[in-house]
Amino acid sequence: MSLTVTDAVADPVQHLASACAKLRAAAPRVQCLTNTVAQAFTANCLHALGVRASMATHPAEVLDMTLSADAVLINLGTLDAARVDAMGVLLDDPRLRTKPLVLDPVFVQVSALRAAWMRRILALDGVIVKGNADEMRAVRDCMRDGGGRYATLVTTGVVDRIEHWNGSTRHVAHGHAYMAQVTGLGCAAGAAIAAFAVIERDLMLAAATALTAFGIAGERAAAMCSGPGSFAVAFIDQLANLDKFR
Amino acid sequence: MSLTVTDAVADPVQHLASACAKLRAAAPRVQCLTNTVAQAFTANCLHALGVRASMATHPAEVLDMTLSADAVLINLGTLDAARVDAMGVLLDDPRLRTKPLVLDPVFVQVSALRAAWMRRILALDGVIVKGNADEMRAVRDCMRDGGGRYATLVTTGVVDRIEHWNGSTRHVAHGHAYMAQVTGLGCAAGAAIAAFAVIERDLMLAAATALTAFGIAGERAAAMCSGPGSFAVAFIDQLANLDKFR
Amino acid sequence: MSLTVTDAVADPVQHLASACAKLRAAAPRVQCLTNTVAQAFTANCLHALGVRASMATHPAEVLDMTLSADAVLINLGTLDAARVDAMGVLLDDPRLRTKPLVLDPVFVQVSALRAAWMRRILALDGVIVKGNADEMRAVRDCMRDGGGRYATLVTTGVVDRIEHWNGSTRHVAHGHAYMAQVTGLGCAAGAAIAAFAVIERDLMLAAATALTAFGIAGERAAAMCSGPGSFAVAFIDQLANLDKFR
Repeated sequence: MSLTVTDAVADPVQHLASACAKLRAAAPRVQCLTNTVAQAFTANCLHALGVRASMATHPAEVLDMTLSADAVLINLGTLDAARVDAMGVLLDDPRLRTKPLVLDPVFVQVSALRAAWMRRILALDGVIVKGNADEMRAVRDCMRDGGGRYATLVTTGVVDRIEHWNGSTRHVAHGHAYMAQVTGLGCAAGAAIAAFAVIERDLMLAAATALTAFGIAGERAAAMCSGPGSFAVAFIDQLANLDKFR
Repeated sequence: MSLTVTDAVADPVQHLASACAKLRAAAPRVQCLTNTVAQAFTANCLHALGVRASMATHPAEVLDMTLSADAVLINLGTLDAARVDAMGVLLDDPRLRTKPLVLDPVFVQVSALRAAWMRRILALDGVIVKGNADEMRAVRDCMRDGGGRYATLVTTGVVDRIEHWNGSTRHVAHGHAYMAQVTGLGCAAGAAIAAFAVIERDLMLAAATALTAFGIAGERAAAMCSGPGSFAVAFIDQLANLDKFR
Repeated sequence: MSLTVTDAVADPVQHLASACAKLRAAAPRVQCLTNTVAQAFTANCLHALGVRASMATHPAEVLDMTLSADAVLINLGTLDAARVDAMGVLLDDPRLRTKPLVLDPVFVQVSALRAAWMRRILALDGVIVKGNADEMRAVRDCMRDGGGRYATLVTTGVVDRIEHWNGSTRHVAHGHAYMAQVTGLGCAAGAAIAAFAVIERDLMLAAATALTAFGIAGERAAAMCSGPGSFAVAFIDQLANLDKFR
């Protein structure tokens, strides 16, 4: 098991345990405007990390819930009228930019509706965007047209690739094939990146730490399960235990 | 393990097993107007107790589904336009008052929208309100302005406190810290209170029995798990087994 | 353990393993317009079978997501305005009929709204309809009025009954009582029927194979669990392993 949280830290295991302990002590709240399929698993992952979750969508309350939170996730899955209106409300308020914002452009390549909203969100500066290879291709196309200034780009895969807007890159080579079989696990990773960005101002390092946390929890869970069902359960257990191994 | 279902019963373990067996025999249906995050876990908890669940939200069908149910839960999490309209439909119909009604004022202290709906629901007589300390503070503030007549107030915490409108109180001192880490477990407890209120007319005792069921299932599950993921799974198993220990 | 996938196949265990392997190789995507309670479990069951899931509901994207999918499930649970609008969009487009379509008429007997939509969907030819005995009674009543031409009818129960429009029937006698206690398992079975219909043009055989897969996974999971919580987890594991036993 190679530990490559990031080349920036001398002792990755120690770094991960410390970051997880710091996160649990801070107990930030992440407002997740996320899809209904992933909501419960996302909240359970955040709770395992000691992070609080809120998942308001109503246009009449989403701004209150977002401005009182510590970080924000916008996930484009299962868009409905409420989520679309909620995004409109959030993007019209400049205070949204005072806290970390992660965009997860789920299936953006097959929906013109999602692509249009991705474009609006990428018009903001400094967004963290996390998606798989297909989704990130659509993100890059959009950036070629001028969006995504100062964005941190996270492309998940067997090896996750994290790109700074200045051109530097980092990789995370952790995880297990079961992770792709658990509904909402990728969506939960986006929420975890938002959470770590509360305690770590270097957004590349925040993303690398979140993905390493997920990857290592996944490796440990895979060693003790007998299929994707028991893997998902063990994954939550292992996430909750990351700050106990130093 | 101290068993304090309520001082009103001589043998709490026997009382709990009997109440669970009675509930399973009655197999009531609880219509849960509840948040999307907690829906699946809530339904699984109800099923484990032998209770049926329906979760309609559309204004055009929510009244049918509610009037044909045996008890009702209104949970203010993830409000959306449909849920808001559905509450309007339900509150306009006097037949709603012919069956037990539990209100779970999730995050009411951070959303003006939720506070407004809490006020409308508390205008009904005899509601059971269940929330954590922050939420119940907002409920009490509202009651000082005249709402909440004949309400039963349930404040969850390390020790749960149940208050009758005549001033008497009961406590439930069961549970485990893992319970707060499982998404939707508190919401599911609200649904369970509604279910027990179908077979137990004393609403204080119904709430105490539901919370004791959850607390004891939580204690037993905690003894056989290795983190919040496996705890949630064992919790459902233990809920389903409560009527087997007499 | 009697294996009765269908009388049409000589070696049912081998048939099931082959069908599951074929499904995993095809990796179709099922667009599930399904209820929020069952979404996560449905997606996890599909993933365990190697099937991809999308769950779009917004009227502005549901057609794109459906026409780019390989099969479609319409489940009438937790209808909301978006789902109702989405059904309208789908039913207005003749291209919907170019791929397998499964209708799950959840609780149709207690909601006039759901009954009206069931009638519209049954006006299409060749739909696969899957429900429990109460729901299928409502379906049959509707068919007596002229709907449901060339429909394949699947009535789930202790023994599942599959009826061809030409009058022939098949039965699947697999499963375990725990299956009825897991929220969304029946809904997931509808999605699995849609998935198997992608690789098997005989819709009766597709439905029989899907229900046998679920039934055998359920039998195996029941042998290694201690309640409905651990059963649900083991069920996903066993679904994922079906193509490994030949």
